[in-house]
Amino acid sequence: MNILFIGDIVGKPGRTALQNQLPKLKKQYQADLTIVNGENAAHGKGITKNIYQQILDWGADIVTLGNHAWDKREIFDFIDDAHQLVRPGNYPEGTPGTGLQFYKVGSKKVAVINIQGRTFMNPIDDPFTVVDQLIEQAKKETNVIFVDFHAEATSEKQAMGWYLDGQASVVVGTHTHIQTSDERILPNKTAYITDVGMTGPYNSILGVEKEAVIRKFKTGLPVRFDIPETDQTVLSGVVAKVDSKTGEGKNIKRILINDDHLNFE
Amino acid sequence: MNILFIGDIVGKPGRTALQNQLPKLKKQYQADLTIVNGENAAHGKGITKNIYQQILDWGADIVTLGNHAWDKREIFDFIDDAHQLVRPGNYPEGTPGTGLQFYKVGSKKVAVINIQGRTFMNPIDDPFTVVDQLIEQAKKETNVIFVDFHAEATSEKQAMGWYLDGQASVVVGTHTHIQTSDERILPNKTAYITDVGMTGPYNSILGVEKEAVIRKFKTGLPVRFDIPETDQTVLSGVVAKVDSKTGEGKNIKRILINDDHLNFE
Amino acid sequence: MNILFIGDIVGKPGRTALQNQLPKLKKQYQADLTIVNGENAAHGKGITKNIYQQILDWGADIVTLGNHAWDKREIFDFIDDAHQLVRPGNYPEGTPGTGLQFYKVGSKKVAVINIQGRTFMNPIDDPFTVVDQLIEQAKKETNVIFVDFHAEATSEKQAMGWYLDGQASVVVGTHTHIQTSDERILPNKTAYITDVGMTGPYNSILGVEKEAVIRKFKTGLPVRFDIPETDQTVLSGVVAKVDSKTGEGKNIKRILINDDHLNFE
Amino acid sequence: MNILFIGDIVGKPGRTALQNQLPKLKKQYQADLTIVNGENAAHGKGITKNIYQQILDWGADIVTLGNHAWDKREIFDFIDDAHQLVRPGNYPEGTPGTGLQFYKVGSKKVAVINIQGRTFMNPIDDPFTVVDQLIEQAKKETNVIFVDFHAEATSEKQAMGWYLDGQASVVVGTHTHIQTSDERILPNKTAYITDVGMTGPYNSILGVEKEAVIRKFKTGLPVRFDIPETDQTVLSGVVAKVDSKTGEGKNIKRILINDDHLNFE
Ligand SMILES: [Fe+2]
Ligand SMILES: [Fe+2]
Ligand SMILES: [Fe+2]
Ligand SMILES: [Fe+2]
Ligand SMILES: [Fe+2]
Ligand SMILES: [Fe+2]
Ligand SMILES: [Fe+2]
Ligand SMILES: [Fe+2]
Repeated sequence: MNILFIGDIVGKPGRTALQNQLPKLKKQYQADLTIVNGENAAHGKGITKNIYQQILDWGADIVTLGNHAWDKREIFDFIDDAHQLVRPGNYPEGTPGTGLQFYKVGSKKVAVINIQGRTFMNPIDDPFTVVDQLIEQAKKETNVIFVDFHAEATSEKQAMGWYLDGQASVVVGTHTHIQTSDERILPNKTAYITDVGMTGPYNSILGVEKEAVIRKFKTGLPVRFDIPETDQTVLSGVVAKVDSKTGEGKNIKRILINDDHLNFE
Repeated sequence: MNILFIGDIVGKPGRTALQNQLPKLKKQYQADLTIVNGENAAHGKGITKNIYQQILDWGADIVTLGNHAWDKREIFDFIDDAHQLVRPGNYPEGTPGTGLQFYKVGSKKVAVINIQGRTFMNPIDDPFTVVDQLIEQAKKETNVIFVDFHAEATSEKQAMGWYLDGQASVVVGTHTHIQTSDERILPNKTAYITDVGMTGPYNSILGVEKEAVIRKFKTGLPVRFDIPETDQTVLSGVVAKVDSKTGEGKNIKRILINDDHLNFE
Repeated sequence: MNILFIGDIVGKPGRTALQNQLPKLKKQYQADLTIVNGENAAHGKGITKNIYQQILDWGADIVTLGNHAWDKREIFDFIDDAHQLVRPGNYPEGTPGTGLQFYKVGSKKVAVINIQGRTFMNPIDDPFTVVDQLIEQAKKETNVIFVDFHAEATSEKQAMGWYLDGQASVVVGTHTHIQTSDERILPNKTAYITDVGMTGPYNSILGVEKEAVIRKFKTGLPVRFDIPETDQTVLSGVVAKVDSKTGEGKNIKRILINDDHLNFE
Repeated sequence: MNILFIGDIVGKPGRTALQNQLPKLKKQYQADLTIVNGENAAHGKGITKNIYQQILDWGADIVTLGNHAWDKREIFDFIDDAHQLVRPGNYPEGTPGTGLQFYKVGSKKVAVINIQGRTFMNPIDDPFTVVDQLIEQAKKETNVIFVDFHAEATSEKQAMGWYLDGQASVVVGTHTHIQTSDERILPNKTAYITDVGMTGPYNSILGVEKEAVIRKFKTGLPVRFDIPETDQTVLSGVVAKVDSKTGEGKNIKRILINDDHLNFE
């Protein structure tokens, strides 16, 4: 089974890149399941019901989130009815939404888990303890388990990869918006990458207008962050091959499409 | 001119990987200048005079550092006499060592600058202001300028890349120990990558025993971090082609050698 | 000379408490100079020109600021013309406003310095280096020097107190919004307190609606912080006696007025 | 019932101050129960079995801890057998020791809870959720409940105070090592103070040699922190009167004894 994952969609340029390229990518990689991180889809901050629906319409099966999940307040109105939407599972009990959704690929169920890091981020519940619980829950239904670990620190992300080696089929990192080149199959057959990277404006800083971010660093003053309007985009993703019988990760391949990498094999 | 840069050497496995592979790499990439980040060379924490000398003996021309520069106290005894050693230039005035060294490649001087980030790190002087000063100083001597920006946050690193676009020939990030795949030539001809990655134990977390790091995250208790003894290593680097006349970055290429990427073209 | 300092005014309740109580306090403590921290005066975030003027009208001579200085964007329009307004002096060069103002008390000039910490706060320029420069500048005009060190960590604040012992007449901390009880005259005659505390709603968390802050901690979700409307306020301040001839701190006394401490003394 | 609490004992000067002054204090305040925070008792970092026993011998009934609990590794050997020792209860399940101990005062049980903050500290389990559980457990046995909330941020500490108002008899903060002056009885009869302060060297920064801490801030380099040997100490505490029948906090009074406050009424 091929699982295609596209990293954090940032604003309109990210949505446009996704809309334009997802059909081709799904075909090219023979994707059986398509997952998209949408935490920045609405002008860089959060997601609306409309945009969530669009991402599904363009070909995604599941949308994952992250620390920006809550930035558009309408999320609270639709998250509990959105059965293809996963938010970080280690927000405290009582938080709307869920950290685990199942999706049927043919006759096979796939579990999709979203979890959030704590290093250099707001403290929430322990991601390691909660991921154990979600994986235990998932295993009752399937052995194909996909984890989007939304975290800042490379240490915490590599730790999660090794921690889940042999427990999950695929562990991908998101949140830093920069793709790493360390994709691999860990010894116990978990496909892993530290960060998938983002999908949005190419000549930007993590998707945001670069002048604004530089000004912020240079001045320490409040700066308004906008998403630049541009046709030059980067699309970041991975495609992982998983053995549908055993749930083992077989292969993981990076996808990075931008003006400097026009063709991706 | 080809500049070869090797990312943070971690402990004995990293040093062994460097010793074994550097001669071949220099030959293969026709390196005119070789720079190695050595902040973790001494058992993961700092560098000794002996190890500094070894790294040069094995073929490096310049050694850069980072936040771990000061972990072995003997650094204070030799740093001021070490003319091929650069520490982050934005430590406050009066700090031993220097953030800028020149190295002669044939008849051409190359400036090598080391600078450290502040986001999610200890606050020191503003890296943007200090890098301006160091580049101004460098420009009096040469237009070939190499910057190792040692920083945690992808935002700060991309900001530095864009900030120096057209000012430096090459800007590489270090410190996260995970290589990113976003190498590119920025519009004004600066070769850039967010992080080069580290050189050390492959089946580890950033070079450290993975069981210890996981235990730290799971328990919150003090844990002793050791560098695993292992033959399985990763070597991370980049090679950048710079126009010796104009100082423009022409090309940047990632190098990643480990058991899953045995051959690098 | 008696210097009266009132800690961070928070929103309308803080402004009302100041307006009502400042005249009495000035009289009771025979204040020769009155300084008020106004970084939260405008609904908890920043200050407007109007509010700045009001605080002066109610009896303040100098208004100091802090990390929230910039929250109301109109600050940029009037700060350079506001000669009784001091912002943290260690924002980078080029920042509007100034970190040092002089005020004439009779025939004696008093220097008022504002400086901001970096521990657990945004990284700006080194407060220790910058305070040295500002004090050097101040000393050309006067030996009576008052420093408002706006910082989070008790370690950084105590360090500043000891660092300036014998250099400044008075060093008061602000920003944590809770008054400390460690006021003292340091051995070299600097009057010191770690934090003066805030002036605003009494039954609140640092001046903010307590239910909202608790919800934030409990849920990790975005929460809107409002300043509660209330008549129950706390006013926090200190009065320091300084020798006008030598500039030495002679005495420092806390002021804390709320429903549980109706009378002060 | 009078509960006497003494804040973080720092090193030998702190232990000596405790040994010398505790008997007098217990007598003067007619203490029925004496609690001492010992997280820094062993040279500023952690506690040994020997020192724990000494603190009890000198008159303490219960010793509480904090983030430094684990700094001396022998804690792991004796914590599970130490029935008058409480460590922060929100370390993850499986951590040695306990966050709740009971102590018999005459015929009345008192519950003593220790809990740790997360803001500006290492992320552990949610203190609010865990304190709910510990209080529920405590309430099965008694209505006199004492909470030592070991935390950095004034916001988190005030939030805990208000959160537990009416649930706990007394909530005291520790960890910043500076006493606050905001002691009060909250509306639902919980005695509260944001921080009790520390017991140790008076002319120091939080108990540590002031020259070392200043050097750390000024240089950003590694610095060895020692506890100065001195006779000049500060002892910080509170005494809270609790209604033994209802468990309500009736009164809370600060204790601060140092060379500038020689007599405490
Ligand atoms: Fe994102
Ligand atoms: Fe994120
Ligand atoms: Fe490193
Ligand atoms: Fe580093
Ligand atoms: Fe404030
Ligand atoms: Fe502030
Ligand atoms: Fe402590
Ligand atoms: Fe502590």
